[in-house]
Amino acid sequence: MIPRDPAELVDLARDGSRTALARLLTYVESGGPNQLATAALAYRAPPPYVVGITGPPGAGKSTLTDRLIATALEQGSLGGFEPFDQLGILCIDPTSPFTGGAILGDRIRMQGHATNERVFIRSMATRGHLGGLSLAVPDAVRVLGAARFRLAVVETVGVGQMEVDIASAADTTVVVTNPGWGDSMQANKAGLLEVADIFVINKADRAGVRETRRDLEQMLDLGGEHEWRSLIVETIATDGTGTDGLWEAMVTHRRFLDDGRLLEHRRARFRAELDKVIGAMVRSRVTGLAHASAYEARVDALVDGTTDPYQAAEELLSEA
Amino acid sequence: MIPRDPAELVDLARDGSRTALARLLTYVESGGPNQLATAALAYRAPPPYVVGITGPPGAGKSTLTDRLIATALEQGSLGGFEPFDQLGILCIDPTSPFTGGAILGDRIRMQGHATNERVFIRSMATRGHLGGLSLAVPDAVRVLGAARFRLAVVETVGVGQMEVDIASAADTTVVVTNPGWGDSMQANKAGLLEVADIFVINKADRAGVRETRRDLEQMLDLGGEHEWRSLIVETIATDGTGTDGLWEAMVTHRRFLDDGRLLEHRRARFRAELDKVIGAMVRSRVTGLAHASAYEARVDALVDGTTDPYQAAEELLSEA
Repeated sequence: MIPRDPAELVDLARDGSRTALARLLTYVESGGPNQLATAALAYRAPPPYVVGITGPPGAGKSTLTDRLIATALEQGSLGGFEPFDQLGILCIDPTSPFTGGAILGDRIRMQGHATNERVFIRSMATRGHLGGLSLAVPDAVRVLGAARFRLAVVETVGVGQMEVDIASAADTTVVVTNPGWGDSMQANKAGLLEVADIFVINKADRAGVRETRRDLEQMLDLGGEHEWRSLIVETIATDGTGTDGLWEAMVTHRRFLDDGRLLEHRRARFRAELDKVIGAMVRSRVTGLAHASAYEARVDALVDGTTDPYQAAEELLSEA
Repeated sequence: MIPRDPAELVDLARDGSRTALARLLTYVESGGPNQLATAALAYRAPPPYVVGITGPPGAGKSTLTDRLIATALEQGSLGGFEPFDQLGILCIDPTSPFTGGAILGDRIRMQGHATNERVFIRSMATRGHLGGLSLAVPDAVRVLGAARFRLAVVETVGVGQMEVDIASAADTTVVVTNPGWGDSMQANKAGLLEVADIFVINKADRAGVRETRRDLEQMLDLGGEHEWRSLIVETIATDGTGTDGLWEAMVTHRRFLDDGRLLEHRRARFRAELDKVIGAMVRSRVTGLAHASAYEARVDALVDGTTDPYQAAEELLSEA
């Protein structure tokens, strides 16, 4: 019998129980008291190093992730950092709350690592978590850390702001594009440039690779001076071409971060996460059952023009 | 001499002073005590009916808005609703905090309504407002209401989530596309379908109109049953073709809303606005000067693994 108590589950997960790990991830996905107890334990264990991979549907992320898994297991460390014997993969599809995530995970699973005990693959969907996926995913990453994973890959479909937010809550962020990337990413190019430590031009056997690279380089030039200039890597995930180059780029970025910059990145992420938790917590208090009628009374007053949002918010906060 | 006191300025703006109105809009854009005092007055006056217009850069929104201004002034009411003698236009470019908005407004101004006293055009940019543009814009709309505007048009560039949020804080939301719209809007099609009361296929003299309409219809079919099915209108803003059809679509939507549904829409928007104000207020309290060291201590504890975001947030909230 698998226990329900988070502390017991964390002990089991640390000793290698995948069932215990799966249950803990369900806890952080679903919200509620078990989520809080799980987070309390998970955030006290060392975090894994996180590689975020994002890009539009069809860019070849799953095939590429599959290739990376093989390389990572061969290497056993990220250029000497984070020696690991197992790999955790979280697959996120924010646009498909019900089935999309599962399909993603399945896609990777089908490609050969299903029976590999050193690989743990989990799909995550929006469920009951207070702050949605943007908080559930960092929690899940920490649960992997508590289960002694030293390297985690978070794969996210899409290039909207939410997907970018999730993917960029990583130590190294990889944005997967294809030749002629412009069309599918137009709306959020600036956001992607901001977060991408590495750009992958996958399907590099197709026409337009040179133009895409030039386009990316130009945008990076326009982006101004940064300590780190995004690397651009070409891959053909279907036959494995370029996987080693991508791994090398990841190692280069890991070495660039070293421990000092890594810590600064993580502090910034913690600030963002803390702000999100605070916002979600206050919203849930103020609109919660105990205050629902006070809240609706303020909405009525706004409709009637007898208050304004700032006064109403002040009052609700002082009552909550 | 124009006064600085918001109450005096509201009186002047109500009597037609554009200078007073402009100063009040600067107050809500810039944040601070005058913003709160202005909002307190503005939210107690009747709101104007708001038409939101959004779409990617280059879709022809400014030219279309220019045509709509002429039609609106001719008509003097939205199909019998909201009789008005003046029109307020707010131009928002969230992606260009410094100059973009100004350029937008200028574009409309240049097209012939600069000297029309019945038209007031204002560009808005991100400045000091607590919750950024997504709160400054509703405030600005209410300031127009306090200055006796009964109809306001909010034009927003872009199709990202933020632009869609701003545009959809309207009573009638118009999304402007072009033949072959798919490329520029790919990343956020679902979000646009959700908010668009009316789709405009502008530049309808170009190839691909039929395909674009079919594409839109299919997506609307997939979107399931709703009380209101988005109307699709074709226009050629440069020569005015279709402007009457767009106006008719706006009137049809206004009649559909009637007063009951309009009130329900506005209640939902007030809830969203209230949540945003609460979130912004709490964040500014918790991270504000008085609590900066307590906040940073929690970030340290997160890095050290001696707390978790939920415990840290609870503690910060109880201290704030």
